Amino acid sequence: MNKSEMVEVLSRYFEPWPHLSPDEQEGLLQNIRFMTFEKGASIHNGDNDCLGVLFVKTGMLRVYMLSEEGREITLFRINTGGICILSASCVLSSITFDVHIDAEEYTEALIIGAPYFSVLSEKNVYVQNFAYKLTADSFSDVMWTMQQILFMSLDKRLAILLWDELTKTGGSTLYMTHEQIARYIGSAREAVSRMLKYFSQEGIVELGRGSIKILDREKLRLLTK
Amino acid sequence: MNKSEMVEVLSRYFEPWPHLSPDEQEGLLQNIRFMTFEKGASIHNGDNDCLGVLFVKTGMLRVYMLSEEGREITLFRINTGGICILSASCVLSSITFDVHIDAEEYTEALIIGAPYFSVLSEKNVYVQNFAYKLTADSFSDVMWTMQQILFMSLDKRLAILLWDELTKTGGSTLYMTHEQIARYIGSAREAVSRMLKYFSQEGIVELGRGSIKILDREKLRLLTK
Repeated sequence: MNKSEMVEVLSRYFEPWPHLSPDEQEGLLQNIRFMTFEKGASIHNGDNDCLGVLFVKTGMLRVYMLSEEGREITLFRINTGGICILSASCVLSSITFDVHIDAEEYTEALIIGAPYFSVLSEKNVYVQNFAYKLTADSFSDVMWTMQQILFMSLDKRLAILLWDELTKTGGSTLYMTHEQIARYIGSAREAVSRMLKYFSQEGIVELGRGSIKILDREKLRLLTK
Repeated sequence: MNKSEMVEVLSRYFEPWPHLSPDEQEGLLQNIRFMTFEKGASIHNGDNDCLGVLFVKTGMLRVYMLSEEGREITLFRINTGGICILSASCVLSSITFDVHIDAEEYTEALIIGAPYFSVLSEKNVYVQNFAYKLTADSFSDVMWTMQQILFMSLDKRLAILLWDELTKTGGSTLYMTHEQIARYIGSAREAVSRMLKYFSQEGIVELGRGSIKILDREKLRLLTK
């Protein structure tokens, strides 16, 4: 990626860009780099690392909580065009919690390294405001997820996930393991398997090996309400 | 409260104060007001109102989620000296969720009304950054709570609550109903009653009518670990 392409990306996705001095713009261009992550790669691992701000060019990231016993709860995902700020949490003093971030698919990203981002957000209040605003976006995502987990029954959560995946993929068969689904909706694998079995008895799905075929879209849709 | 007292409070608690123009400072002083809330009063009720930013002079606020079925989950509390930003969520476009806020005790607060705060945070990036930074503080509080609710066993959550209340009140008897405790720790009353009965069988507490006397502090402390 050459410099003018980089400038185009930044002026489009990095809101504070016009509020940067020429020196700051130059500094930023020198401290931004292109990185790729294999599917499944760990990008941020609690408080052990602090990569920086990620602009997802293509791919998908998954942000999740991890308990001491290894239980995962997916908080939200970041798609192509999205920006990941929690991977720069060390820069932001008001963020005192830690999350984990994986590449859920092969991902290409532009990264402003944490050390330079720290300098920049210290000097330029527009940059800091941009970072905290993104944090508030993440907060909103997390609150939505918490509503689902804490207040919504498992059948509804499962139906919503299947419906969303259907809409995303376009087809009628989903290739996901029960383990994966459980992680996505913050439940236990056994509970998901049980509920899927119930869905299949109801004629909503047909379960295959590592696949779920949706037989009755209307029934599924009603369950999401 | 006269003007010079107000200026003192603002220059102390309102971080962006020195970054305000004389006009903005004057405008703020004209748009801040003193309010009191009775114990139990509702301050913010989902998306139905948007009072503004509250500086808690004395008292305590409770911020919580409410399910459609009326189940409450306490997210965090704001004590004397704290600032409540989620009561101005309508001003901040990145906050798309809604919470409820009650006065848990008789509370006195200074309030920057939402309409003026909106104007000010639009004009002055320092004000907006202050607001989003406070939002990130709340996010950190919520993540802590979620860790407790989702990953921690009920006995530990209950022990931590009792221990915290003990420390707060100084005495050895707590006056709380099981219903209240359940709300505080995001559980069901029945589950809390069961666990308290277990605690009492273990000689940790003695249960009275609307009261819980702590008999064995050391055992309770160990449960919080």
